[in-house]
Amino acid sequence: MTTAYEQLTARFARLANLNGAAAVLHWDAAAMMPVGGAGARAEQLAVLSLLGHEMLCHQEAADLLDQAEGQRDDLGPWQQANLREMRAKWRHATALPGDLVTALSRAGSACEMVWRTARAEDDFASLAPGLAEVVNLVRQAATAKGEAFGCAPYDALLSQYEPGLDAADIDSHFDALADFLPALLGQVLEQQPMPPAAPERMPAAVQEAISRRLLDALGFNFQHGRLDVSLHPFTGGVADDVRLTTRYDEADPLGSLYPALHEGGHGMYERGLPAEWRLQPVGGAMGMAMHESQSLLVEMQACRGDAFLHYLSPLLRELGGVSGPAWEVQGLATRVRHVARSLIRVEADEVTYPLHIIHRYRLERAILGGDLAVTDLPGAWREGMQGLLGVDVPNDRDGCMQDIHWMDGAFGYFPTYTLGAMAAAQLFQTAEAALVNLSDDLSRGDFARLMAWLGENVHSQGRLHGSADDLLTAATGAPLDGAIFRRHLEKRYLGD
Amino acid sequence: MTTAYEQLTARFARLANLNGAAAVLHWDAAAMMPVGGAGARAEQLAVLSLLGHEMLCHQEAADLLDQAEGQRDDLGPWQQANLREMRAKWRHATALPGDLVTALSRAGSACEMVWRTARAEDDFASLAPGLAEVVNLVRQAATAKGEAFGCAPYDALLSQYEPGLDAADIDSHFDALADFLPALLGQVLEQQPMPPAAPERMPAAVQEAISRRLLDALGFNFQHGRLDVSLHPFTGGVADDVRLTTRYDEADPLGSLYPALHEGGHGMYERGLPAEWRLQPVGGAMGMAMHESQSLLVEMQACRGDAFLHYLSPLLRELGGVSGPAWEVQGLATRVRHVARSLIRVEADEVTYPLHIIHRYRLERAILGGDLAVTDLPGAWREGMQGLLGVDVPNDRDGCMQDIHWMDGAFGYFPTYTLGAMAAAQLFQTAEAALVNLSDDLSRGDFARLMAWLGENVHSQGRLHGSADDLLTAATGAPLDGAIFRRHLEKRYLGD
Repeated sequence: MTTAYEQLTARFARLANLNGAAAVLHWDAAAMMPVGGAGARAEQLAVLSLLGHEMLCHQEAADLLDQAEGQRDDLGPWQQANLREMRAKWRHATALPGDLVTALSRAGSACEMVWRTARAEDDFASLAPGLAEVVNLVRQAATAKGEAFGCAPYDALLSQYEPGLDAADIDSHFDALADFLPALLGQVLEQQPMPPAAPERMPAAVQEAISRRLLDALGFNFQHGRLDVSLHPFTGGVADDVRLTTRYDEADPLGSLYPALHEGGHGMYERGLPAEWRLQPVGGAMGMAMHESQSLLVEMQACRGDAFLHYLSPLLRELGGVSGPAWEVQGLATRVRHVARSLIRVEADEVTYPLHIIHRYRLERAILGGDLAVTDLPGAWREGMQGLLGVDVPNDRDGCMQDIHWMDGAFGYFPTYTLGAMAAAQLFQTAEAALVNLSDDLSRGDFARLMAWLGENVHSQGRLHGSADDLLTAATGAPLDGAIFRRHLEKRYLGD
Repeated sequence: MTTAYEQLTARFARLANLNGAAAVLHWDAAAMMPVGGAGARAEQLAVLSLLGHEMLCHQEAADLLDQAEGQRDDLGPWQQANLREMRAKWRHATALPGDLVTALSRAGSACEMVWRTARAEDDFASLAPGLAEVVNLVRQAATAKGEAFGCAPYDALLSQYEPGLDAADIDSHFDALADFLPALLGQVLEQQPMPPAAPERMPAAVQEAISRRLLDALGFNFQHGRLDVSLHPFTGGVADDVRLTTRYDEADPLGSLYPALHEGGHGMYERGLPAEWRLQPVGGAMGMAMHESQSLLVEMQACRGDAFLHYLSPLLRELGGVSGPAWEVQGLATRVRHVARSLIRVEADEVTYPLHIIHRYRLERAILGGDLAVTDLPGAWREGMQGLLGVDVPNDRDGCMQDIHWMDGAFGYFPTYTLGAMAAAQLFQTAEAALVNLSDDLSRGDFARLMAWLGENVHSQGRLHGSADDLLTAATGAPLDGAIFRRHLEKRYLGD
């Protein structure tokens, strides 16, 4: 006879396969699908969402969860953690009616497709109705979940991406950042050297070959993944079939190679998740901040430091056919660590990136709280960018339409980027202390020891610890500590 | 209040979206997926199959079908046809237990993945256990459906692809072919001219550009479709997002262009299916023979005739950078209509292709009937190829492992290729009679009138007519008539 817990694992495996199917279809929509397929794809994804929702909301699931929780003492620690994660997924699903799940999926797909064209044509007016519909549905979902969980609506959205996190935590971290970042930015802009000009264009095919070489160096296994092109780089697919995307600009090779490394960091996390818990909730990544910490640890901490540039510089000169000071280690260093007041989040440097996030965090709270209408978003965007970053926004394409997240209904997601940057600094500091002469490895493009350390301390842990802070405590001895990120920035950009 | 029929349409739309999701994932598995993703994909597809099966087998579906059939007189002709097709799908689903559906999906995916490697390495032994498992499950399905429908097991499999067709029909058509084809083949081989040598290689990218140009000429809309590469060319995806594949051999450009035209014919059928019945059973293609008739009408009837070659020849010389007698109309004619005893079905000419099919038809009946063990397939393959086509089979890669169909559990499918070739001849003869000077159009690469005729008489009809013979009767005045195909072959290859 199978136990209630065992029956639940079969149910959640089925759900994970359904979600895995949807993940590949989402990747396809962004990387492969012709524009005329959007309507059909939206309907397909809506049906998959609804079926997953129905699976979780079935009375049998509730009964099995109650039973299994009554027999919790018979379970080992991973199983107990798995049961906790099952309950959390159940709680999120049952808080929403099926109609709303379908409507959210459909509206997100539709808005995302309109956004592709609207962004290209800098036409916010054509996007506004679709986005307003998404906002309206997200607000309903946030209210329903807030009521079910006994928390504020925005906190309920956050908990979808980051269990155990609330707006008060974010405010405390972000207030600290807002205290020192503007002054630090001013100092950096005054004292940083001008990067050397890099006039050569590098063909997209060459950039792609170098990207693949870098992903190989990272240890990314192309037998279990792909690298393709999409408008907005992302990591999708499932753990055994990881779909990375980047984008190529022939005038800006570093602008494709570093995104590829970034997505590679995400991909290594997915690949390193515990295989024995593959289709179970406890086998997933420990929240979106931890996911981002893995991409930023690779991209920012490891690959924008001098050591890695000793590997990258000869590689670019050899495979990329480039030469001159811009491609020497010193020239690359000033380029990959160049700080600027910028328009575009995904192109922003480490210093200004958190300001982009604080900007979005404020706006999404205002939109969801009803203090900002979607039609007023372009103006509020301009105002916030001027205030936080000192930047004039010339158009909506490079303003409030630059990101895909809100289009798809992902409100409450943006803060995890900056929490991830902070966690990356903390994890890298611990790894450097644990791995003697790690920089020698990186200067040879050898990521084996670093990835093994991350594999052991982060990737293989799945969601065992239940929150990013608990995982960080196990891995580094302390919960998220913004002071480490601050010291990292000061040391790297001011040389203090 | 919604009627039982209306409730059924909602249910079947949901099912169609689930199947649409699976169709895109199948395409991805063949055209995009890294090899290490196979296990996860097999599980995803198995879950989608099972959920679709459960949707059809739910008691509510049976009740609604009974009710709607009781109110059939309230429905129009398309709705009545839709209800008939719903019942047929229900009958196929309820004949099988859910476990068998999952096992079939999983075994098919697994076998297909093993096949990719086994074929490349010419290693039938590594394929045999997986294929035996597929055969075992298909046999169980055939028996269950045969019992439920009151027909022979093989006829039950046929009816999955071709409603209204049984093995007796196939025997009668195939016996007629077997009567005249060997003699005709002998005559053609004696009298056909040697094609001129074509030593130039054409880069894959150029072949792809020409393939796209030809698909444009056909009227294929790339806003609603893609062209990619797979080991075995096929048409997948859904009607609003048609995924065509081909393959490129730089030494054999015609070997990629004609498959692209072939898949383009399939794609035009998908695109031309009645949009107002998009997610309903009656909105699908009228069986696999009719589907094949559309690809062969384009590839064989229209594009291997002299008229089209007057368009193709300058196109190849201009875009492909080739020259000389092999690329002039006369040289192309001898090449695209060259007949040979061949190993590979998908590369076979019109004359020998039916012999490849008769060979497979005999083998699959023997395998399913228990008269041929899977382990004995390589030997039986060699023997049949020698007997029917006079060909020595040098290895299993180009022998019994060349096709994907059986790997995926598609037994009962092969006969539809040759029935499709016969239907193509019949439809093209009618179109030529209806469209004055059609060959002038084709000599300019203008397919508009031909596609409009097919759109009106075939594509837009969906499954309204209920069987290929009824659709052919409506379009051409008679059910499938093998004599027309025979006259076509005699006229084209013997000049009689």
